[in-house]
Formats: sequence, structure tokens, C-alpha cells
Amino acid sequence: MSTTSVSIEASGSSAAKTFSAAVVGASGYTGALLAELLMRHPALALSAVSSDTQAGTPVAAVLPRVRTDLDFCRHDDVAGVDAAFVCLPEGAAAPIVKRLLDAGSRVVDLSPDFRLSAEAYSEWYGEHPYPELLPGVYGLTELNRAQIAAAQLVANPGCYPTAALLALEPLHALGLQDVIIDAKSGVSGAGKAPSERTHFCSVDSDLLAYGIGGHRHYPELQAGLDIDGHGPALSFLPHMVPMQRGILETIYVRAEQHPTACELRKLYAVVYADERFVEVCDEPPRLRDVAGTNYCRIFVTVDERAGRIVLVVAIDNLLKGACGQALQNMNVMLGLPEQEGLL
Amino acid sequence: MSTTSVSIEASGSSAAKTFSAAVVGASGYTGALLAELLMRHPALALSAVSSDTQAGTPVAAVLPRVRTDLDFCRHDDVAGVDAAFVCLPEGAAAPIVKRLLDAGSRVVDLSPDFRLSAEAYSEWYGEHPYPELLPGVYGLTELNRAQIAAAQLVANPGCYPTAALLALEPLHALGLQDVIIDAKSGVSGAGKAPSERTHFCSVDSDLLAYGIGGHRHYPELQAGLDIDGHGPALSFLPHMVPMQRGILETIYVRAEQHPTACELRKLYAVVYADERFVEVCDEPPRLRDVAGTNYCRIFVTVDERAGRIVLVVAIDNLLKGACGQALQNMNVMLGLPEQEGLL
Amino acid sequence: MSTTSVSIEASGSSAAKTFSAAVVGASGYTGALLAELLMRHPALALSAVSSDTQAGTPVAAVLPRVRTDLDFCRHDDVAGVDAAFVCLPEGAAAPIVKRLLDAGSRVVDLSPDFRLSAEAYSEWYGEHPYPELLPGVYGLTELNRAQIAAAQLVANPGCYPTAALLALEPLHALGLQDVIIDAKSGVSGAGKAPSERTHFCSVDSDLLAYGIGGHRHYPELQAGLDIDGHGPALSFLPHMVPMQRGILETIYVRAEQHPTACELRKLYAVVYADERFVEVCDEPPRLRDVAGTNYCRIFVTVDERAGRIVLVVAIDNLLKGACGQALQNMNVMLGLPEQEGLL
Amino acid sequence: MSTTSVSIEASGSSAAKTFSAAVVGASGYTGALLAELLMRHPALALSAVSSDTQAGTPVAAVLPRVRTDLDFCRHDDVAGVDAAFVCLPEGAAAPIVKRLLDAGSRVVDLSPDFRLSAEAYSEWYGEHPYPELLPGVYGLTELNRAQIAAAQLVANPGCYPTAALLALEPLHALGLQDVIIDAKSGVSGAGKAPSERTHFCSVDSDLLAYGIGGHRHYPELQAGLDIDGHGPALSFLPHMVPMQRGILETIYVRAEQHPTACELRKLYAVVYADERFVEVCDEPPRLRDVAGTNYCRIFVTVDERAGRIVLVVAIDNLLKGACGQALQNMNVMLGLPEQEGLL
Repeated sequence: MSTTSVSIEASGSSAAKTFSAAVVGASGYTGALLAELLMRHPALALSAVSSDTQAGTPVAAVLPRVRTDLDFCRHDDVAGVDAAFVCLPEGAAAPIVKRLLDAGSRVVDLSPDFRLSAEAYSEWYGEHPYPELLPGVYGLTELNRAQIAAAQLVANPGCYPTAALLALEPLHALGLQDVIIDAKSGVSGAGKAPSERTHFCSVDSDLLAYGIGGHRHYPELQAGLDIDGHGPALSFLPHMVPMQRGILETIYVRAEQHPTACELRKLYAVVYADERFVEVCDEPPRLRDVAGTNYCRIFVTVDERAGRIVLVVAIDNLLKGACGQALQNMNVMLGLPEQEGLL
Repeated sequence: MSTTSVSIEASGSSAAKTFSAAVVGASGYTGALLAELLMRHPALALSAVSSDTQAGTPVAAVLPRVRTDLDFCRHDDVAGVDAAFVCLPEGAAAPIVKRLLDAGSRVVDLSPDFRLSAEAYSEWYGEHPYPELLPGVYGLTELNRAQIAAAQLVANPGCYPTAALLALEPLHALGLQDVIIDAKSGVSGAGKAPSERTHFCSVDSDLLAYGIGGHRHYPELQAGLDIDGHGPALSFLPHMVPMQRGILETIYVRAEQHPTACELRKLYAVVYADERFVEVCDEPPRLRDVAGTNYCRIFVTVDERAGRIVLVVAIDNLLKGACGQALQNMNVMLGLPEQEGLL
Repeated sequence: MSTTSVSIEASGSSAAKTFSAAVVGASGYTGALLAELLMRHPALALSAVSSDTQAGTPVAAVLPRVRTDLDFCRHDDVAGVDAAFVCLPEGAAAPIVKRLLDAGSRVVDLSPDFRLSAEAYSEWYGEHPYPELLPGVYGLTELNRAQIAAAQLVANPGCYPTAALLALEPLHALGLQDVIIDAKSGVSGAGKAPSERTHFCSVDSDLLAYGIGGHRHYPELQAGLDIDGHGPALSFLPHMVPMQRGILETIYVRAEQHPTACELRKLYAVVYADERFVEVCDEPPRLRDVAGTNYCRIFVTVDERAGRIVLVVAIDNLLKGACGQALQNMNVMLGLPEQEGLL
Repeated sequence: MSTTSVSIEASGSSAAKTFSAAVVGASGYTGALLAELLMRHPALALSAVSSDTQAGTPVAAVLPRVRTDLDFCRHDDVAGVDAAFVCLPEGAAAPIVKRLLDAGSRVVDLSPDFRLSAEAYSEWYGEHPYPELLPGVYGLTELNRAQIAAAQLVANPGCYPTAALLALEPLHALGLQDVIIDAKSGVSGAGKAPSERTHFCSVDSDLLAYGIGGHRHYPELQAGLDIDGHGPALSFLPHMVPMQRGILETIYVRAEQHPTACELRKLYAVVYADERFVEVCDEPPRLRDVAGTNYCRIFVTVDERAGRIVLVVAIDNLLKGACGQALQNMNVMLGLPEQEGLL
């Protein structure tokens, strides 16, 4: 075994890595997955993983997939890193993001704390501790690349808006009038905390339509579809489906213009021609084609009988909908190749 | 063990059963489930189960849940029964239904062969061998009870239309303008034949939007929503979800009138007040509340921001969406209590 | 609708029901399912459903499948019923069982509180408040029918022991030497309380071997296999599988005698010839053949290469492994046909 | 978008790749996954993907995850590659392997065609076309590294034997007497061909014990456990579990020596100290800790009551149990770092 064991560790070595990176908050799904991605990133060295409840414990004992010698530290102990990914609940993220920014780190915040305008934030969440920082640069990479490259703080989008806004972007030019987003998500979107709702026997063989009164991603979608204060009539209804990961959204649109299905596919092909992580496809996408990747796949057609545009869009909610896009954004912020460390 | 073994068989005895019943075509999910239901029905005696490919084999060897001593017979051998349930593929059902009708049996046909008008049938399926029998009495029990009671042949509705038409019925009075049915179904709806699409590894952890160009249930929905030749703009998009049974439909409606959510719930409560198998509920229904039963649960509300009515409706696709409703219809046809043999 | 609505309620009427029945503790899976079964039982009238946390709430609001007008009462309010099913956690059951016995009710206790001898109980659980009641009559119906018929209190067996002891019973005569029970269970066996272990994302696409150090069902198995103080070397290792319901046990046995597979099947056929709910089958049973029923299906063969008997046994853990057998026992206690109210 | 799009393709470039590689037979799960792994391998350039039924079609149209410009070629068109992975059914692999060997390629064969001795092969499969090539070098990398490094042909192990033989290896020294392998596998192990057995509705919520009479992996296990013609009494019983990927094996062992659990863990830690892809763990491994990786995780303990060693071992059946180990073997054959291209 001796001859090969030397080289085995080579690619895992952090000697050649350019930037130090921290995951702040690794008790949930996104923090754990980001730590795993960073371990394999060729230019970012995982230098800290925090969890206030697990501080002092070896990371690998709690997260066997993260094969590192690091122990968990406390959130407040994270300092001096080039790149910080904040994976904390809403409200808890803002003060820590502020501290890391003041200390000079580049920050991608995966919480909703910096996604909205000050007005929208106060309407949906209440008072914000740093309204002057609102809204952060919205990290939908394909749509905001230039601002992201120049930003110190990027607000990583919610999973549902990521899929919907990528799918709807090319239609803005047609005059959006009416948009219905019927979204289906895996259970990881509901987070890791055990609850009646996430119990296996509650989810398996069942479907849950939830957030009918108003899901917290609604204002984010609304802001993304609004142009000069005018947005379409927007309905957004998420469903929880018996699977762990993935979001599939079926979107029904009425627009002022009425292109054919063929014209629409050409439009989409042009808009996303240079994008590595967005694929326009000839039939409705499957989650298995994006699972474990940072890709977004979009299908567009026209329901001739009803005179309506229909879109089907698929992403992995934990990757393009969270950790993958966060890493994509950080790559852009650091001037690295955008796909570095991503599948 | 001797003391109780005598009484054990009592309730299974067919001595007291009033009518003889046959299942024609028990190779698929619906035929097998109907045979199981009939075994336990207090007034219908299971007297024949047919399968051309299994003829001669003991039923219980193939379908262990159907604890009967019957052997499978051939379809053509079914004769002289009071009640026949035809569970054959489209096209194959019609000639056998015709023969059974001529022989005097009451027939519930679970195929689409008798659901449509002669015009709609020829548009979607081609020529019908007995166009003079079209359309059969449409077996949505709650809406057509009187005609069903008088019929010799009932065309059992498709699973998707059953849920949608029950959910939409009370809204007809408001002037339906625009209807989008985003349907999610378990895999049993795709039938028992093995295919790439129904392979476990294709379904699990995935979602499939299918039939976008035009699902065979579209004309049935269209016919059910049409009033005097005027129907709403209708989109219907089914999705296959990683679960065996159940249909959940989320329906987005624009109508001429704009009642409040509260007014709508009152309307639904009135319309379905006397119905045992339709329940109007205060929050979106779950499949687990209808699984294994003949119930349909409906939730209605208004999306205030978009000015739209939203419905969520749930049924077990193999029961209220197929076998359960078939039995409910036969009970009505035979003058038996409507819920007999149903949970 | 009026013509049939009268008869619809007929079979649900409790007028003709002979005995009153209560479910004590309906917050978990077993209590809820027992309430549902009792609603449909022809001779037992559901007269009380208790839950200390839900007292005062309509049962149907919490458990939509239990279509009753009853409100939840407190455990202490249950009194004067002919038949009581106690579905409380270990330790909580004993005092309430005692009170109900003193008041004259017949009781089936689904907890482990009365299953063991006083010695075994104190070793595994600590001190028992009523050691003089230990062990209760062990409610494995097929093996203990006479004592159950005469009992006021029956200790309903655990789910794993029900399957294993039914499968092993015919082998006692061969001199059991070595028994390994490799058990696979659905998640409902872990109960309804949310936990990291029962989170959908923890269970789906995974398997958990648990209780390796000593599962609480071990002493119950040991007692069931012990004859005159001599039992086989026994290993019992349960696994949690990504499904809601069902137990499949693969059992590897060495015995003093070495019958052929053919002789074993004959032996099993004879032993269980008169049992409605035990079926000896020609190939390994599937859970789908017992799901939703009170049946136990057993396959027995010989692994010729290793000289070992191999058994595969399947039950629905919530029915034959809990509620179904509880009802079967109560039927026997009350002198009703044993299968009454069971599928 | 222009600034980053240049660098995006850099890491996918095959310019710097040292060896050309072909996947022969990409219609099934293993071929498709190998193509995906090779796309990302830093030193192996994917230069051909064959499928006789898909020849001429773009690979990416059929396998969207394999983002390549290649078209499928025919098996017979694969030639002149440094490294070939043969993913064909048993029997179909041998002639193509022979041709590739004759042409000078290094070959890893994922079929069972070269795993057994000529005697064992003829007993289980019939006559072999090239018995002089039997047995091939058995590619359990950790146990056979030196021979693999020197081989032109490596027979990649079956998924079940990979897990079992890694788990049992350290116990050979204790004198194995009796071994029971109770294996649980995801459905992908049954292959991609649709069948009644792999239909979603057959698998979901169910468990299948299969191959009781003799699974084709039995002789491979037997050969691996045999020392000087003496092997333990061996039982092997696989079960299909409702999940796509992963194998968990619970192994019950009696040995001549009786070490404590603590001694066993030390033994395992020593044996596997230098192995990157084998981890000895402190509690039973979970599939989620190995899913999508090439790792094998092993837990060892002693069941004190029965005096038996118990092992639990987990791998991803498509990676360490097939494609991952195939790539690990090819890395060794080519003198590359063993973990290159593997997670």
C-alpha cells in the first residue's frame, strides 16, 4: 500500500490554495454542504467551520463527509478569513455578517437578511439592524455578475426565486402580465430541525401545499419581477414533495406579446448562450439531470389551447438554490474561474 | 384454536350476498383492487375474475390480497352476472362492455371508452365501434346520481377529472373564465406495465411534468367545464411524483364574480353538505387523509394579491379516482346504500 | 342527493353495537389507528378517545380519518367502558391500566408495561408499580388464545416479537440452538415524536442499524424462545428502512434436527392450518401483501450450503404488530368472532 | 458575461490529459456514471462512449449529465485507447475485453466474466470463451494493489462482495467458522431494464428478499473467503430496499478466536490505517456518509449475549461497488494517484 499512499493526500493539500474560507453556521444542511464543497475547492482553503452548539467537537465526528481535522469553533471566533459563507437563520445572520464585513472579509450571506429593500424587509420581517446595508447585491450570478464582482457582501438568493427568476428573465421583454409559480420542493428546503412536518411518516406518500397565505420568498420574487414599479399579477404556491432535494417549478405566464414556442426557444437559447450553468432544453427537465450539480435547466413552450406560456425549470435546491450559487458568487467576487469547485 | 375457527369464516360467506359481481381484467392495479373490495362487500358476491393471460391460475396465487378460491377465467367466459366492472385498456373495453350489456348485466366501465361524446372521442382516439352508445352516463356520482341510478352502463371518470370537476363544480355559478389545473399524481396512475418511466430509479427523488402537448384527460375536463358550448380557457398539466397513490391538484381560477374566501367556503359547505364522500376543509388537504378511502377533500381560498381563486383537492387515485367511485356507482345502480363496501 | 343520503349513515350507526370501547392515548400512531378501526367495528362502539394534550378538541379536527363527533377527553375521564385499549408510553400505561381494571373494563395494553416477568422487567426498565400483575397474559393471539379469552388484561406483544415468535413457533420442536433475527422495520415503529432520526432527510435513501447493544424487545423475544430455562443463542438486530409501515424479518436458525425444506413447509402448513391471519407461503413474502391487514405471512426454507434454516416473515407493524392484534385479542376476550372489524 | 466565460472551459479541457479513455456500454447505470466521472478526471480524457443501440446519437442528448460533444459509437468502433472500461452484461463482455486486450488497451471489466476461476465459472455460468484468462486479477483495490498495478486486465468485483470482503478481511486471522451476510441494496443494483420487480409501485414501501436459492455473487464471496480450500459455512441473502443507491450489509460471524469489541476495533484500525477509502467507525455507518463517494465505512462489534462478531458495512453500490472502484483500479494500473477523479 505504501507506494501510492504518498500521493493520495496531494490533491487535498491546502498548500497551493490561495484564499482562506470559513463556513459560519454548519449545523444545518447548507453549512455542512458548503464545508464539503470547500474541502475540494482548488483555490479556497477551508480554515474554519463554526457552530455554537458543537464548538470544540471535531467537524468530522459530526459531519463524516467533511474529511477535515478542524474542530468546530464558535461563530464569534471566525476572523481574518478572505471568504466567509454565512449559513445562519434569518435575523441571526445580520450582526455576524456586519462584523465580518468590518473585519475585511468578503461575505456571501445565505440568509434572507440582506436580500430585500429596507421597505420590503420591514414589511415582512420587522426592523432591520443595519437598514443602510439594504438591499445587498442580489447574488443571482447570471443576472448580476458585474455588481457581484465588485461587491464585498452578496445576498445569496432563496431557492425558489433562483429557479423562477432565471426562468422568467427572458420574458421580461414580452411584457409580463400574469405569473403563476406552482413550485415543488424536496424536504431539505424546510431545514434540518425535526418537526411534525418533516417527520418521514408525514412526508412519505404525501404532498403538502403550504405558505398559501404568503410565503417569505414572495417579496423576493416580487422584487425580481418588478420593473419601474410595475410587476405582473403574481401567485406563488410551494408544495413539499416526498424527496430530499430538488426544486421543480411549473410557471404559467400571460404576456402582452404572443410569440410561438419556437420563437421562445430561440430567445432562451440566445439569452443563455454563454452561461455554463443554465441549460435550455427540448423537453421538461428532470431533477436527476441537475441533482448534485450547480445547473439550472429550463423548458419553455406555449399552451396553444389556452394561449399561455408554460415554463418548467429544475435546480438542486441545495446547490444552484443555495451552496453552489454561493460558491459561484464567491468565485466571481475573488476573480476566480466561475465554475471552480463546482460540478 | 377450535372454538373460534368456526365463526371466523362467517362474515366472508357469500350466502347472504344479494348480487353476483365480476371483475373483467384483473392484470392491472384497478382490477386487482376491485376484486379485493368486492371480497369484503356485504351485498356483492365476487363470482368471476378474468385475465386472458392468467386464465386457469388461482387468483390468490397472483393476487395474495384477494383471498378467494376462484381461478382466473377468460374475459369471454364472464357471463350472467348482475354487476360487471370492466378494467381493460382503452379500445379493448368497448366490445366486452357491449357483450355484457346485451347479456343484461349492469356495467361500470373504468376505461375511457364511453366517457366522451362521439365527436370528442373520434378527435382524440379515432373511430368508436359503438358510437350510438356515446357518451355513456358519466359516473361522477355526486353530480349525476339520478342518471346513474337509472343507467345500465356507467362510464367511470378518469382520476384527474374526478378531482378537478368536484373541486370546480361550485364555481360554475360564478362564471369560470380561466382555469389552470396543476396536477400531481402517484405512479400507479401510469399503470402496472414496466417502462423506463415507471422504473424506481427513474421516479424516486425526481418529478416529471408530462403530457404538456395534450393529456388524454383534457377532453374529459373540457366536457365537464363546458356549459352551453362555452368553457373557460383551460390548462391542464399533470406531474408524476415519487409516491404510489394519490392525486393532489392545485387549481388556479379566474371567474367573473369575485367572492371572498369566506363566502367561497360557505358556498362549498352548502353544495356538499349532504355528501358523505366530499369534505370541505379549512386548510389544504393531505393525501394521507384520503389514502385508502373513497373521500375527496377540497380546500378553497382567494389569493388576494393576484385576485385569483385557489383550490387544493385530494383523492386516492385508485379509489375515488377509480375503483372506489366505480363501486359507489354500482351501489347506486343496484339501489344499495351508496357507501356499502367503501371506507 | 336526498334519496340516498338517508341510508348513508346506516352502517355507521352505533345503535346496534354491543360493547362500548375507549382508546386511551391517541396522540401517537397506534391510538389514532385504533380509533379508526373501532369506528368501523360492527360490535364495538367508539365511546371515548383520550389525549391529555388535546382534551376538549374535536377528534376529527386532529385526526381527519376518524370521522366521529367525539371530542378528546383526558385519560382520567375514561370510565365505564367495556373495552379499553391503552396506547401510552412505557411507564405511563401501568397506572391507567390498573385503574381501568379496578373499574371492571377489559383492557388490552399496547405498551411494554405488562409483557415481561417481574424479574425481566426490573432488569430492563427498573421497578414496576404493580409487580403482582406481571407478567400479563401475553397477547400473541394464535399461541395463547385460551388464556386471552379468560383474561381481563392482555399485554399486547411488541411488533418485532410478534413476527419472530409466529415464525419460530413451529421450530421449537426441532431444538433451537442458534437464532439470528435480522429485522427491517418502517419508520412508524419509531413513533410519532419528531427527532433527528425520523426526519425525512435522515431516513430517505438510507438505512440505520440500531439497538445493537440491546433493543428493548430483546427480553420479550428471549422469553418467547425460552423453554424450561433453556433458550437458543439469540441475536436480534433491527434496521430502520425508508418506508412508513411494515416489518420484514429474515431469521437464520440452527436446530438440533435437520429437516428438509419440504418437511418444514409441511410442518408449518399443519401448525397454522386453522389460522385465518397466518399464511405460509411458497416464496418470500412481500410487505405489500400484508400492508393494511392483520395478516402475517411466513416463508421457510433451508440454506443447503450452510446447513441452516432460513425464515422470512412479514407483517404490518401497526396492525398485526400493534392495533390489529390488539383488536383481535379484544374480540377473543369479548367472545366475538376473532376477525371482526379486521381486514 | 464575457470576462469569465473564457476561463469556464479551462478545467474541462482535455489538452492536458495524459491518457485516452473509453466507456464500452453506456446504456446502463454504470456506463453512464463512468462517463460522467471520466469527464471530470484530471488525467483521463473521455474519448469514446459506446452503445450499439444508440450509435450515432449525441451522448449528451441521452445522458444530460455527461456534458460532452461525443456521439455514441458502436462497441466494435472503440479502438486505440489507453484505458477501457467495459460495462456490458455477463457473457457480452468477454469477447470485447479480449479484443481490447489484444489491441493493447488496459481494461477494467465491470462484468462478472473474469472474476471467477474457470471451474467456478463453468459451474455458475457455463462454458467460458477464454478460460485461459481466468481468473482475471480481482480488483478489490485495497487487497490486491500490487497485482492490479501490474495487470493489463482487472476484473472489477461485484458490489456485494466488495463490501463483504473488505469488512471480513481483518477477521481471516481469527479463523472464520460461520458467516451470514444479510445484505440490503438499493434498486440500481438490479439494473436499468424495466421489469415488474423494478417498477416503482413494486419497490416503494416494500422489501424483497431474493436470490435465496443462490445469488450469482455467492461463488465470488466463497472464493474471497476461502483459504487453502477451507472456507466458513457461508449464507448470503440479499434484500432490495426502496432506495436507489447504496449497500448496507450486516454480517454475523463466528470465529475460532474470541476477541473483545475493543480488540477488534484496534485490529481494524491497524489493517486499514493507510487506506484513504476505507474508514473504521465507532457506530454503524449510514449510507448518506458514503453516498456519491468511493468510501467504504465499517463498524465492528461483539454481540456479547450470543458470543458473535457483528459487522455493519456501507458503500455506494455504483461507486465503491462499481464505477468508483473501477476508476481506482485504473488509476493504479496507470500509475496515477489512486484517488484521482474520485470523491
